[in-house]
Amino acid sequence: MFEWLDSLIRQTNPAVSVHPSPALRSLPTSQPADQAAVRRSNLALVLRHLGARGSRSRAGIAADTGLNKATVSSLVAELVERGLVREGEPHRAGSVGRPGRGVELDGRRVGGIGVEINVDYLTALVLDLTKTVLFEQRVALDVQALPPEEVLDAVAELTSRAVRECARRGVLPVGVTIAIPALVDVEGGVVAFAPNLHWRDVPVVRGMTDRLAGLLARYPMPVRMANDANLGALGEYAMGGVAGTPDLVYLAGEIGVGGGVIVGGRLLGGAEGFSGEIGHIQLDPAGPDCGCGRRGCWETLVGMAGMLRLAADADDPVSDPSLDLEQRMDMIRRRAETGDRRTLDALGKVGAGLGVGASILINVFNPGVVVLGGYFASLGPFLLGPMTAELRARVIAPDIGGCRVELSRLGFAAASRGGANVALEAVLDDPALVPLLSAARSSG
Amino acid sequence: MFEWLDSLIRQTNPAVSVHPSPALRSLPTSQPADQAAVRRSNLALVLRHLGARGSRSRAGIAADTGLNKATVSSLVAELVERGLVREGEPHRAGSVGRPGRGVELDGRRVGGIGVEINVDYLTALVLDLTKTVLFEQRVALDVQALPPEEVLDAVAELTSRAVRECARRGVLPVGVTIAIPALVDVEGGVVAFAPNLHWRDVPVVRGMTDRLAGLLARYPMPVRMANDANLGALGEYAMGGVAGTPDLVYLAGEIGVGGGVIVGGRLLGGAEGFSGEIGHIQLDPAGPDCGCGRRGCWETLVGMAGMLRLAADADDPVSDPSLDLEQRMDMIRRRAETGDRRTLDALGKVGAGLGVGASILINVFNPGVVVLGGYFASLGPFLLGPMTAELRARVIAPDIGGCRVELSRLGFAAASRGGANVALEAVLDDPALVPLLSAARSSG
Repeated sequence: MFEWLDSLIRQTNPAVSVHPSPALRSLPTSQPADQAAVRRSNLALVLRHLGARGSRSRAGIAADTGLNKATVSSLVAELVERGLVREGEPHRAGSVGRPGRGVELDGRRVGGIGVEINVDYLTALVLDLTKTVLFEQRVALDVQALPPEEVLDAVAELTSRAVRECARRGVLPVGVTIAIPALVDVEGGVVAFAPNLHWRDVPVVRGMTDRLAGLLARYPMPVRMANDANLGALGEYAMGGVAGTPDLVYLAGEIGVGGGVIVGGRLLGGAEGFSGEIGHIQLDPAGPDCGCGRRGCWETLVGMAGMLRLAADADDPVSDPSLDLEQRMDMIRRRAETGDRRTLDALGKVGAGLGVGASILINVFNPGVVVLGGYFASLGPFLLGPMTAELRARVIAPDIGGCRVELSRLGFAAASRGGANVALEAVLDDPALVPLLSAARSSG
Repeated sequence: MFEWLDSLIRQTNPAVSVHPSPALRSLPTSQPADQAAVRRSNLALVLRHLGARGSRSRAGIAADTGLNKATVSSLVAELVERGLVREGEPHRAGSVGRPGRGVELDGRRVGGIGVEINVDYLTALVLDLTKTVLFEQRVALDVQALPPEEVLDAVAELTSRAVRECARRGVLPVGVTIAIPALVDVEGGVVAFAPNLHWRDVPVVRGMTDRLAGLLARYPMPVRMANDANLGALGEYAMGGVAGTPDLVYLAGEIGVGGGVIVGGRLLGGAEGFSGEIGHIQLDPAGPDCGCGRRGCWETLVGMAGMLRLAADADDPVSDPSLDLEQRMDMIRRRAETGDRRTLDALGKVGAGLGVGASILINVFNPGVVVLGGYFASLGPFLLGPMTAELRARVIAPDIGGCRVELSRLGFAAASRGGANVALEAVLDDPALVPLLSAARSSG
């Protein structure tokens, strides 16, 4: 059921080859290859190649890929007709002969939309094919306090803004992916259970397609949903500071704690897509009560709610969910920087708790890097010291198994970026999804 | 560094395709394919195909694989010359024409050797290419009480017996893989740390190749080493009751607790091969002291040593490491079957502890199945009830995320079977590793 995420992750980063090994590539197929599938696959190959290599002559593409030049010319012509590739600067392949005319990825035709529903904010984001942010808006919303239907009204409104911004710029929206802190039935588009939103069995995707019916009739595109931390891990793997690290654990500090894991360059999905539920690892059977009904869960110690209980009173503005999240985290960071004892004590405890829980994941996964996202990234400089001390005491492998701990540069924006990438990957996998410009002009 | 395990696991089970998708298979390569590599790859394709399909005519192989008939005939001839394939029964491909002459895998030429070093026993095992056990011997040995050099003497002696048994049967030994409950530097062949053996930085592979130098000169073959639970997971995935389940968590109840995880059909290796260290997950910061120097580790609750402390006094024969392990477990099982209160209480606590720890792994991995191996399999009927009750209370996903808990049918023999399979896989990957029979006859 996780195929669209699964196939994506092998291909999100150009460092991860989509090619089988050379020896296998020349093996014959056991059934006759579908010519249309080969064509689509070759279109994708050329498009990804240009995305990874930049401007390139047709002869250069032929040499790089082994496709013959006539095929490359035909593929490039189709990609140009679909608005995904444009003629670029002349490109001199060698010292003799005519310079080849270069072509390059034209990222401006299509936009992928990533939407995030979190406990106290919504985000919508548009990325073009060059991963440039065309639109990004975050609104504070006390999601816990509202019925799901009202939340979806607000999400649909924000998503519409993203779609309209695409239209204004002449960008074709190619997909919406919704990130949410929940156990998600990816195939059905249903939130099975979201403890921190108090949602259970909410058909989010249907709710969104109903609300966006008018826009979706005009811009037909898939609407999908996945767990926010899984999409955050994809975002880090695709565009973060450690992009391309094949064994990566992503920890998102939100109201709760989410986890997403990249194993050997692929998102850990699990048998039913329910992997990465790390927030409720019980660290202490005598610990505080958790919203999930259990006790001593990791997120009671290190989730934002737990951190705020330690660092501030309930009427402190840093605890006010109607204020912007990054502003609230900035306030806490400034207090820590000025040496406020309560803040520093709180962050020391949270950092140590992060180390206790992360040591379990490092013992299990032996990742090359742990990326701290969400509010962990905002307050990272005060968390890393106590966290690393616990890791050194608790990880069995020598030198923490070679694992580094890095602060996310994407922060709260990783999940929506992962979602937008999922939408774009569909086009990179099958460029023929994008209509010919001539067809678009005649119908539009 | 984990490449040999990594490439193996994709190919261990015929259910896991080694083919790229049809569309990609016909893509050209970006560098000219090496003809010798293509030949080797095609030899492997035919050999694996016969292993999966049984007897097949040359024409049938050509139809199944898309290779042309002349190529298939040449490949089959080479495999026959290498003693890996034999002529079989005539095979009628269709209703008209001559019946094709069938060929089939000949598993008897080569043997893979799996060796296990555990806390109180050693095992050596020979599997032929049809996964038939040709030799299996377990000896009780109090490994903790001996210096590593003496242990390696005993391991080498047992391995020599396995090699000599191969020779007696005319089977060519193709590799030795040593399983050990340790953090293993796979590339260097060194035990970095084995808390339950009290070993640190022991160059086991070099110690073995030194001791086996005479035999290895006669039968040149690789000697490798890996963590026992990782090899146990491979054994279950290759030959266990749940073989081929792509998302599988294997838990081995030994003196400690080991874990191996198959993710999407591949062994979870980690960035440096140190994954699966689950025995030291801290379940209770106020729990009993662990051999690793920490407190409340999972294995203090559910490792065999912990179970024995609950179930029996130190002078009870079930606690005597010089007796055969399965006999000791049989004694405990009989006590439980006759309603012995202390035994039942102990197994109830161990089962519940298994559920507490396994719930973490199920929340993280969402596996399709958890396989209980080692002593957990021996005493499984008394562990499953309390374990499942904890899983139902602690796993976040509905219905335990669809996960089943199964008892291993391989029991204590999973790791050595995984090791023997690793040795055989090298031949299935590259049949040309096996010398031509004519060369073997002329040189031998």
